[in-house]
Amino acid sequence: MFSGRFDQLVQALRILPSVGPKSAQRMALHLIMKNKEGALGLAHALNEATSYIHECAVCHSLTENEVCDICLSNDRDEQLLCVVESPADVMAIEQSGSFKGKYHVLGGHLSPLDGIGPEEIGIPYLIQRLSDGLVTEVILATNATVEGQATAHYLVEAAKHLPVNMTRIAQGVPQGGELEYVDSHTLSQAVHNRMRMK
Amino acid sequence: MFSGRFDQLVQALRILPSVGPKSAQRMALHLIMKNKEGALGLAHALNEATSYIHECAVCHSLTENEVCDICLSNDRDEQLLCVVESPADVMAIEQSGSFKGKYHVLGGHLSPLDGIGPEEIGIPYLIQRLSDGLVTEVILATNATVEGQATAHYLVEAAKHLPVNMTRIAQGVPQGGELEYVDSHTLSQAVHNRMRMK
Ligand SMILES: [Zn+2]
Ligand SMILES: [Zn+2]
Repeated sequence: MFSGRFDQLVQALRILPSVGPKSAQRMALHLIMKNKEGALGLAHALNEATSYIHECAVCHSLTENEVCDICLSNDRDEQLLCVVESPADVMAIEQSGSFKGKYHVLGGHLSPLDGIGPEEIGIPYLIQRLSDGLVTEVILATNATVEGQATAHYLVEAAKHLPVNMTRIAQGVPQGGELEYVDSHTLSQAVHNRMRMK
Repeated sequence: MFSGRFDQLVQALRILPSVGPKSAQRMALHLIMKNKEGALGLAHALNEATSYIHECAVCHSLTENEVCDICLSNDRDEQLLCVVESPADVMAIEQSGSFKGKYHVLGGHLSPLDGIGPEEIGIPYLIQRLSDGLVTEVILATNATVEGQATAHYLVEAAKHLPVNMTRIAQGVPQGGELEYVDSHTLSQAVHNRMRMK
């Protein structure tokens, strides 16, 4: 429609998650008709971000430097290490404001059928990180999926020989969750893991 | 989060219509973690589109050339001219496959309170376009809003002296519309504009 470059822009916008053909068209028209300056700014930000952002050498989260701000921070508890699957999880936990330790990003979860074993998600490197005795508690914050659970269990086994406590983030009914809409697996977990109030 | 350039990318993505802070974050992470090549392609497409796409000199729709493909086409009926508010409307009508004439894009609608009068939406130029006697029917396809209706009525007045038929796209219950969910203004229009079947 309109021109080859218009169609190319619509196609290029389709790489964004949950952007279908209709919203890509709407976005392209909006940018060209109403916000060319914003479009140029977005192009610049995309070029900059792809050039400069990469994995932190220590925790494997994202940074523009050799080592990320969280790893370098003196204000965070080095004895607490939170293990997550991806940088998106680091972001979610940071935004919850519930954690003041350090992180370790696996970059995935165990998935033997896809050929993703302990080496592929850097478990030997994590065990090595734990071997200096600085960390006293590892919080396993992999996803509450079958793969995330399996990965957490594997990590407990792999760290058996180390003098470190390992905990798993709680699973249960989400805040505001109405029981009739919560799936039965979650509900049965929530009953099983019930906590004493009195 | 993560780095300045990450935050800048999240901010830049917010200019896209209906992208809030959460989805901008999700998009930024997706691009950096999963599709750097796509991100670079999008940056390129944005730069190209903003540089090369502009208004058609004849119909004021969008094109990369002096005059758009629809205006130049010999396969379209030059006697039929469809007047719309924006290039998005040209796209919607083209995609409906219901029209084989030419277009005229106003670039807005009359809105006296915002200082948008006939000059601002190029009505004198449209009247001039109609003056060569080539067009025999003008289809008024401005939006079915108060402003779109007012603009259509104004155009009928402005073209009173010209030997040209003017029609308005039909208003009524949309395809698949269940009456109980259709607003009462639309319903009353639909009853008023009822069509004889037998
Ligand atoms: Zn780090
Ligand atoms: Zn044109």
